[in-house]
Amino acid sequence: METLKIGIAGLGTVGAATLGLLEANKELIARRAGRAVEIAGISARNRSAKRSVDITPYPWFDNPADMLETCNVLVELIGGADGIAYKLVRAALAKGVHVVTANKALIAHHGLELAGLAEENKCSLMYEAAVAGAVPVVGSLRQSLSANAITAVHGILNGTCNYILTQMRETGRPFADVLKEAQAKGYAEADPTFDVEGIDAGHKIAILASLAFGTQPDFQAVHMTGISSLTEDDFKFASELGYKIKLLGSAINHDARVLQIVEPCFVPGDSPFAAIENAYNAVFCECSHAETPLMSGLGAGGDATASSVVGDLIGVARGDHAPVFGVPAAHLTKAAHFDPREVESRYYVRFSVLDRVGVMADISAILRDHGISIETMLQHGRAPGQDVNVVIVTHDTLRDDINMASELISRLDVSSGEPCIIRIEDNF
Amino acid sequence: METLKIGIAGLGTVGAATLGLLEANKELIARRAGRAVEIAGISARNRSAKRSVDITPYPWFDNPADMLETCNVLVELIGGADGIAYKLVRAALAKGVHVVTANKALIAHHGLELAGLAEENKCSLMYEAAVAGAVPVVGSLRQSLSANAITAVHGILNGTCNYILTQMRETGRPFADVLKEAQAKGYAEADPTFDVEGIDAGHKIAILASLAFGTQPDFQAVHMTGISSLTEDDFKFASELGYKIKLLGSAINHDARVLQIVEPCFVPGDSPFAAIENAYNAVFCECSHAETPLMSGLGAGGDATASSVVGDLIGVARGDHAPVFGVPAAHLTKAAHFDPREVESRYYVRFSVLDRVGVMADISAILRDHGISIETMLQHGRAPGQDVNVVIVTHDTLRDDINMASELISRLDVSSGEPCIIRIEDNF
Repeated sequence: METLKIGIAGLGTVGAATLGLLEANKELIARRAGRAVEIAGISARNRSAKRSVDITPYPWFDNPADMLETCNVLVELIGGADGIAYKLVRAALAKGVHVVTANKALIAHHGLELAGLAEENKCSLMYEAAVAGAVPVVGSLRQSLSANAITAVHGILNGTCNYILTQMRETGRPFADVLKEAQAKGYAEADPTFDVEGIDAGHKIAILASLAFGTQPDFQAVHMTGISSLTEDDFKFASELGYKIKLLGSAINHDARVLQIVEPCFVPGDSPFAAIENAYNAVFCECSHAETPLMSGLGAGGDATASSVVGDLIGVARGDHAPVFGVPAAHLTKAAHFDPREVESRYYVRFSVLDRVGVMADISAILRDHGISIETMLQHGRAPGQDVNVVIVTHDTLRDDINMASELISRLDVSSGEPCIIRIEDNF
Repeated sequence: METLKIGIAGLGTVGAATLGLLEANKELIARRAGRAVEIAGISARNRSAKRSVDITPYPWFDNPADMLETCNVLVELIGGADGIAYKLVRAALAKGVHVVTANKALIAHHGLELAGLAEENKCSLMYEAAVAGAVPVVGSLRQSLSANAITAVHGILNGTCNYILTQMRETGRPFADVLKEAQAKGYAEADPTFDVEGIDAGHKIAILASLAFGTQPDFQAVHMTGISSLTEDDFKFASELGYKIKLLGSAINHDARVLQIVEPCFVPGDSPFAAIENAYNAVFCECSHAETPLMSGLGAGGDATASSVVGDLIGVARGDHAPVFGVPAAHLTKAAHFDPREVESRYYVRFSVLDRVGVMADISAILRDHGISIETMLQHGRAPGQDVNVVIVTHDTLRDDINMASELISRLDVSSGEPCIIRIEDNF
């Protein structure tokens, strides 16, 4: 068969690692691809940037779009939902050039349009690397698990957040300190917003929801809460109650209404998710016929991402025919939304209040008036006349009721600061 | 596209579950397959056997080979390495009929020949269901992880053994008792040999080795030790030392010499494998670029197996082109063998000896003479003049040295019974 000619756009960490992997495992990759694989072009913003690989052996293009004339497959590693990445991928697909990408923002925002374009032009659009690094979750949902009606997908999907949460728990240090350290070590970006506010995990959950439910990717409907407002105290209370705090992304199909949500949750200390620490990711599927398959592995980094990029390239070389989201784009349904206020769960709520006689009675009365049943109430130590933490663990309660009660409690004149509300996920 | 016509041969637990799944998720499956899916024929030894599904709606064939005239894909769920299953699958492939099977024995024994036959006749031979039930390990090795040079695959691959080991540890009961209970509950076959002697796991490790290393499947080279000689005492000592006992299948590539081995091992009590209990399976890959992806899930049972069978059918419907073992059959290499006696590891060895002055000195001297360094030596209680267990935990030692020393120790006149030697796997 003819040589597969690859054009790589973007030579940051992942781009350089992809070049490195294609070189390091060259023979093995050709054997598995069933044909020779050649790097027919590379392109990046800055030709002379310092990189971990020597780029001089490869044909350089100042304009990545020019590579589309000579390559069968474009590897898009530029990133970003719009701008160059979007234009380039559209141009490639329109010309019938296959696309492999690690760009979750692009797929989450424009997946439906791009899938249609890929089908029209009979080419592949593959993105295993966009979700959970080297963990083979996209491929598994697209084929091995595809016979199942899937009711939910849950994941620890952001390595930066999971690293920060692990370190906060282990060292007892505040968020800002640990973030700074993560930035110094290269685990967090200079502008960490996308990671720590849950947006990156939100992109991934939008993609997983589409693959799992056969629905159109719908990033606008993802509810996202990040980890920046968690305090050291929340970690101490979590441990005391037997939990760990994880940033969970969940896509849940409630009778054809879909909830997509990313937020910090309590997971039981002995659950499989609790064992996923630092930069590791994990995804867990609730399937009609396959009981709870769990996949985990390193979720970020150049090599792990390159592993999935090149796995997809091998799929393209073999002529992988699976539809972009597991069903043809025209058959993806538009899901109705399930409102997170309807989520019934146990909740952890921490209030900061003045330590004064009668405070507990006021809080308890408000909770009672909203029909919220208390399982545990914790207050450690005394500090008369000062602020103390009061923690409530509820029985199953509607999020809406918890929100309203917390709002009222935070308006009491003894309250200081915002209440912290965390869902308790006992189902793993 | 034209309807995919399926013929199902074998209507035991998995066959009935496959019929049930094709019916239950009919629309979803057609949507994901991109075409209608029809059960064009069914066949089994006994038409009137009691089954969990109604088979009257489907065309019955007394001779499964007759189905090959009317179907595009044969689902082989008869089982067994030879006999009808082998003949039928050969006949199907020779006619250009795709094959989906859950038959690990068939693939482990005849995989190379069948892969060649499938390629010659341009059809697919798929077997996700043959390894680890619903866990998408075959598909992941075949594509998402295929860019990696894989140095080892380790797995808990037999649900029956894992169930028995879990129960033995939790209840302190002997093997024979727990086996009987497992048989009563349907977790073990009337003749449990294939499961408890490690043969079933051996079939699976032969398949995983081929997928991981691009080598010809070579079941004859798998070294298998089962779980039937483990005693309650071994579980107690394991717990005391901080380990759990798991039947591990490992395929390890030592500089192009391949070791395939199935044997009970000690794994650290806090390792991911230790958390895999009862009928769950897990597979763990050591990859050049993807740090330790782990996949786990329910490893057996009708629904879990049917999930993978129908996932493969969807792949066939889409025209999945991946080679049977990830590389074309003609390019699978013949691996040299790595002898298990060369395995260097820490070992647990339990001897049953007479409690008499000087015994420890005799044992220690033999170990010293073989260059074996002792990390821990345990003997609980005293029973002068009676048999007691003496347990040795070694530092890293060649298996060959441990075997020879144990042989000499078992010939001491104070020894009774065979020594029990278990590898300690600290690498997870």
